[in-house]
Formats: sequence, C-alpha cells, structure tokens
Amino acid sequence: MDSVSAAVPAASLRAVPQRFVFDEPLPLQSGARLARYELAVETYGTLNAARSNAVLICHALNASHHVAGRARNADGSDDVGWWDNMVGPGKPVDTNRFFVIGVNNPGSCFGSTGPASIDPSTGRPYGAAFPVVTVEDWVDAQARLADALGIERFAAVMGGSLGGMQALAWSTRYPERVAHCVAIASCAKLSAQNIAFNDVARQAIRTDPDFHGGDFYAHGVVPKNGLRVARMIGHITYLSDDDMAEKFGRTLKADDLAFGYEAEFEIESYLRYQGDKFSEYFDANSYLLITKALDYFDPAARHDGSLTRALADARASYLIVSFSTDWRFAPERSREVVKALLDNRHSVTYAEIDAPHGHDAFLLDDARYHRLVASYFDRVHASLGGAP
Amino acid sequence: MDSVSAAVPAASLRAVPQRFVFDEPLPLQSGARLARYELAVETYGTLNAARSNAVLICHALNASHHVAGRARNADGSDDVGWWDNMVGPGKPVDTNRFFVIGVNNPGSCFGSTGPASIDPSTGRPYGAAFPVVTVEDWVDAQARLADALGIERFAAVMGGSLGGMQALAWSTRYPERVAHCVAIASCAKLSAQNIAFNDVARQAIRTDPDFHGGDFYAHGVVPKNGLRVARMIGHITYLSDDDMAEKFGRTLKADDLAFGYEAEFEIESYLRYQGDKFSEYFDANSYLLITKALDYFDPAARHDGSLTRALADARASYLIVSFSTDWRFAPERSREVVKALLDNRHSVTYAEIDAPHGHDAFLLDDARYHRLVASYFDRVHASLGGAP
Repeated sequence: MDSVSAAVPAASLRAVPQRFVFDEPLPLQSGARLARYELAVETYGTLNAARSNAVLICHALNASHHVAGRARNADGSDDVGWWDNMVGPGKPVDTNRFFVIGVNNPGSCFGSTGPASIDPSTGRPYGAAFPVVTVEDWVDAQARLADALGIERFAAVMGGSLGGMQALAWSTRYPERVAHCVAIASCAKLSAQNIAFNDVARQAIRTDPDFHGGDFYAHGVVPKNGLRVARMIGHITYLSDDDMAEKFGRTLKADDLAFGYEAEFEIESYLRYQGDKFSEYFDANSYLLITKALDYFDPAARHDGSLTRALADARASYLIVSFSTDWRFAPERSREVVKALLDNRHSVTYAEIDAPHGHDAFLLDDARYHRLVASYFDRVHASLGGAP
Repeated sequence: MDSVSAAVPAASLRAVPQRFVFDEPLPLQSGARLARYELAVETYGTLNAARSNAVLICHALNASHHVAGRARNADGSDDVGWWDNMVGPGKPVDTNRFFVIGVNNPGSCFGSTGPASIDPSTGRPYGAAFPVVTVEDWVDAQARLADALGIERFAAVMGGSLGGMQALAWSTRYPERVAHCVAIASCAKLSAQNIAFNDVARQAIRTDPDFHGGDFYAHGVVPKNGLRVARMIGHITYLSDDDMAEKFGRTLKADDLAFGYEAEFEIESYLRYQGDKFSEYFDANSYLLITKALDYFDPAARHDGSLTRALADARASYLIVSFSTDWRFAPERSREVVKALLDNRHSVTYAEIDAPHGHDAFLLDDARYHRLVASYFDRVHASLGGAP
C-alpha cells in the first residue's frame, strides 16, 4: 500500500475521491490473484482518536464509493451520493459522529481496478481476462483498506442488497473487526429465480456482437444493446408490481394506440430510458462480474448448507431490515438470516418495513425505515461511549 | 372462403392439419386490413347434427392449432398437442362428446398467414409490414372460420392465458355465439409489470442486428440471440419462485464453482436450453405481434375503464380459473373478471387452484384442476341435452 498518509483527512460533504494503491497481489477465491490494484474511496466525517468510530458502507450492483455528499463531475455538474439520504451530518448514519468510508469494489467501473483497467501483464485492458471476484474477495480488499486507514475494528459494516452480503461476510470472515453488521434488503444466498434473472441479463450482454468476448475496448465499441436489456430486466425486478401499477399503470404517452413498436405505454418509455442511460456509463464486464458475485454468495455452502453453522463464529450485533414488497430479496430471505443468528444466540434486531417500493425501497427516504436505522446507530454510538 | 367442404370430417386423434383460405380481407382494429389469408386448423371429435357441440380452443403466445393428439412432423417424428392432457377421448374436454377446434391465429407462425408469409402486394415475406393484430382481430378471424364450418354458436370457447383473453373477447364481441366461456390463468388486461417484461423481450429482439428491422428473411438469418433472451425472460415469469427453487434450487452441474460464464447452475442450463430451442422454431416477428396483442387487450378501455360495463352485453356462462402461484396472471386479475361478471349477474363459476407451478400450471396435468374442468364440461354437455 503506497499512497495513504498517516493522518486521514476528514472529508467535507463536498466529496473528494481518494485513490489507494496496493502493490501486493490479492489472492482470490477462484485461486487466481489480482495483481497491483487501486481502490477508489470516499470518506465523510472524522476518525476519532481511538479509531473506533469507522463505518464501512458496501455498495450494491451499480453503485460506487460515492455514497454521500456532492462530487464534481468532469463536466462541472454535481453528482449526489447514492445513499446521501442515509449518510451525512444529522442523518441516520451521522457523519458528525461516525467516520464513514465508501469504497468502489475491484471489478466495478468507478475508479477501482476493473475490467477496463490496464492489465500490467499485457499492457491492454483486462477485458475478459479480469478474474471472477466474489463477495469474500471484496471483503478481503476492504480489510486491506481498513489496515491502510489504521482501522482495526469497524463500529459498523453496512450495506443494502449485495452490500448487505458484504456486511454479512465481514461478520464471519473478520469477526473481531466488526462491532455491528447492518444488512438491509439482503440475503444469505440468491434463489434460483434470482440467478435466472442474472443469467438472462448476462446472456443479453454476452450475445451482443459488440461484446467481442469481453474485449470490446480494443474495438472502440460497447455492447450497448445487451447492457440496455440487462438493465431493463434488473429494473423491473427492483420495483414491485403494485408500485409499477401505481406509477405507470397502463397509461399511454399519446391518446390512442399506435399499432407499432415505438414506446407507447409510459412504462416502456421509462424502462427504455433507464436502459439507455445505464448503457452509457456502466461497463459490461463489470455487470457480468458483479452479477456472478451475487450468484456465488452462499456462506452456508461451506457448512453443508447450514447457515447457522456459517454464522457460528460471528461476534457482531446485527441489524437486519427487509421490505414487504421486495420480491427480489424477499423478507423470507432476511428471516432465514435472522433465524440462523438466533440459533447462535447472536444479538439481532430485525424489522420488516411495510413499503410499496420493492427492492428499491432500501435506497429511498422512508421515515420509519430511517428512524429505525438512526435509532440503531444511536446504540452503535452509545457502545463507543458517546451519548446516544 | 374457398376450401371447406360442406360435411366436416371427424378428425381422429391422429391430428391432421387442415387449411382454410379466406379471400375477403379481414378489417383490423388498427384500421389496416389483412388481405387474402389462410388459417391452419385441427379438429377432433364429430360435429353433431344440430351443430351445437363445437368447442373452440384458443391458443396462447407460443402454441398453435395443434391442441391434441399426435401430428406427424416432417422428419416422421410425432408431436403431441399442447393441451393433449385436457382435450381428447374421455379427457376433461371430451372429444367423444364435443367437436373441438384448434386454430392458429393470423400473425403466428405455425401455418396460418403470418409475417413469414408472402405479402401478395409485394411477392416478398411480410416481415415488418405484417399489420399489428389484436385479440379482437383474432376473434373476428375465428368467427369467419366458424361460419365456414357452419357453426353458429359454440358450446364453449376456451383458452388459457392469452387464449383466455380470446374467450373473454368472444363472449362480448359475439355474445349470441358463445354458450360457455372458459378463461383459465387469464385476465382482462396486463399489468404494467407484464407490459414491461414483454417490452424488454421485444427490445432484445429488435436490437439484435440479425433482426434487420423485421425483414431478416431476405438476409437468410434470424435474430436468434434476441429470441433466446426473450424466451428466457418469458420462461422465468411462467414459473413460480417456489417451483424454481424446488426444481433447480442452487444446484450446480459440477461439484465446484467454475469461476466463468458457462452455464454452471442447473437453472442456467435449463433456461439457455429453452431459449435455444425456442429460437430455432419461433418467428421473431410473431413474437413481437403476439406480445403486442397481449399488451393491447383491455376491453374496459372502451368503457371508461369499467370492466363491468365492458361485460354487460355478454350472454355466456363463465368458468374462470386461476392458480395460486401464478404471478404473471395472478388470481387477483381473475377475481377482477369475476367481480365484473357478478356485477352483471352473469353466471360464473370461479376456482383458484392451489398449485405450485406458476403460470405454467394451466398446461399441466393437475387432478383437481382437471376434475373441475371435466365437471364444468359435464354441465356444458348437459345443456346440449346430453347426459352429464
């Protein structure tokens, strides 16, 4: 690790990405190694003298280290962090109390080493040669970042969806380094249906002729059509049926049916727009890698399918949250985690929030949800010796 | 109509497709017309002297006129009808009692005039020029077929899914011609989520470079990748989450994770296989046309959104069936139809079958479901003056 200074500066909520370079290769679950790599990081708040108030936020499929505050885009515009309603001064994860860290995972495409980065062994973008990474690999990379920041133990590791999987993995992989584990709208393994949706998305990308087996960078193209379809599929599953009915229903853009194939229902316009936007900024290989990490996550698999045994050595206290209309990461999946934690007599707080917004709910500003998280972080803060 | 003889021969359950040619153009809901067209038809059983025992079976997205029995393929192999467990001698729709008709809808790709047929105005395949057809257009084409067969009134019009939409449309469009309407796993309109899944599938097809704007026939290619993704998406939504978990779970094809992108979970193999198979026989333009017909069906729209008023003039008795785990055509959607029928004091029998197989359940051999349909058809038979 080269570039971190001993004293970590407190970031203002004008977020400034930092870059950490790791020279020692990262051994991966697959047996491969990731050579010299970089991580893009943002931090908010101030690390206390005891270095005990750090909170790690783990991102999901299409997010990044830019968790909160405003970052300046290349074109001078501002980009608000993806969990800015959750993290900031006076917010549920209060940056006046906590030193919050966002890190872009290797394999993603927002500044950390990923498939579009130059492979030092060839001098060309990794492309298809970028190794398959797992949730556990990301957690290992994050642990090295924690070492670099001088953080021995996190006050909390927190994430939603795939981010929640990372939080769960932290609590078993580095049990002594996590005081609280917060896993929202997450699960201990994907269902067959989830894997199926991910694989269709991957097939859409991989069969796009512009994918070129993953080495599209050299051809100066991106598999835009495949990415667009992948995102449209994903987006449908992040919303609930009811929410879509409420927001879009069968409303037409014009008064009459068009008897053609242009977008005519509002839902078609919306999804195509989301797909187009996504295909302009997201790397296709990162999409493949990250969905694969989602599919592979299954800590119970190493314990003959027993999640109870997989969680036996954890030392953290847990907050587990699910949302009633989330059918991609359904409440049943969270309850499986809660049950396995209780089997081990671990400390766990569980809430199922009645919310109409499907999986997306974990990103939205819902008063009951935010009060719950704020109250839990009051306890986290109190356990550090702070006023609740 | 040219080619039908006055006496319709009783088909044995060695099914032999018949072809009916209609010279008079069919006016369509869009305002366009379908010029001279053909319909591929199979019949089973014998039309009685009173011509009162005819049952029309309407097909869904990827099925055809080949409802029951065995048809001989070009390669000499046998192909069993898609609803062979429902229709045949001694089966719930008993061909010893009823004269059953299966007809391939125009726009489909199993022998009736469709986008791969020659457009008489150009001498080339219709391709993108094939007009958008609706459920009501199909019903009109089926009514002409009934005229040709000398059938004034059907003992029953029956279908599942999109086929059920046709049965519902028959009961309001030709109220005097339908004694019983049987709509299974169907609805009176698709939800926004359903339209969304259909549109993603269409986008996968339309952005496949081999689609050539719908005129791929001239290029000697088919948009196989797009069709494959479309079918995979569809297939996921026809199964229930629980059914997939039961059948496939997270089972791997090999002992260990492969850390690559070949199919490694059983569910991936299964879906890719289904997608590959489908892309070899189904016409991409037909997929677009038929999903569009699904999206457009909304009889209430012409009555200010009132399904009750849309069904006011119906004269049929109804059997409505739904399946508990069908999330594509959920029981709630059937109950909306039942409510609107009851508002009109129409005769309606409704059953929600507790079955784990999702939307696919309507095609499967489930004893309770089949007993229900058999018992309903006893009543239909009794109403013809036959022993129940």
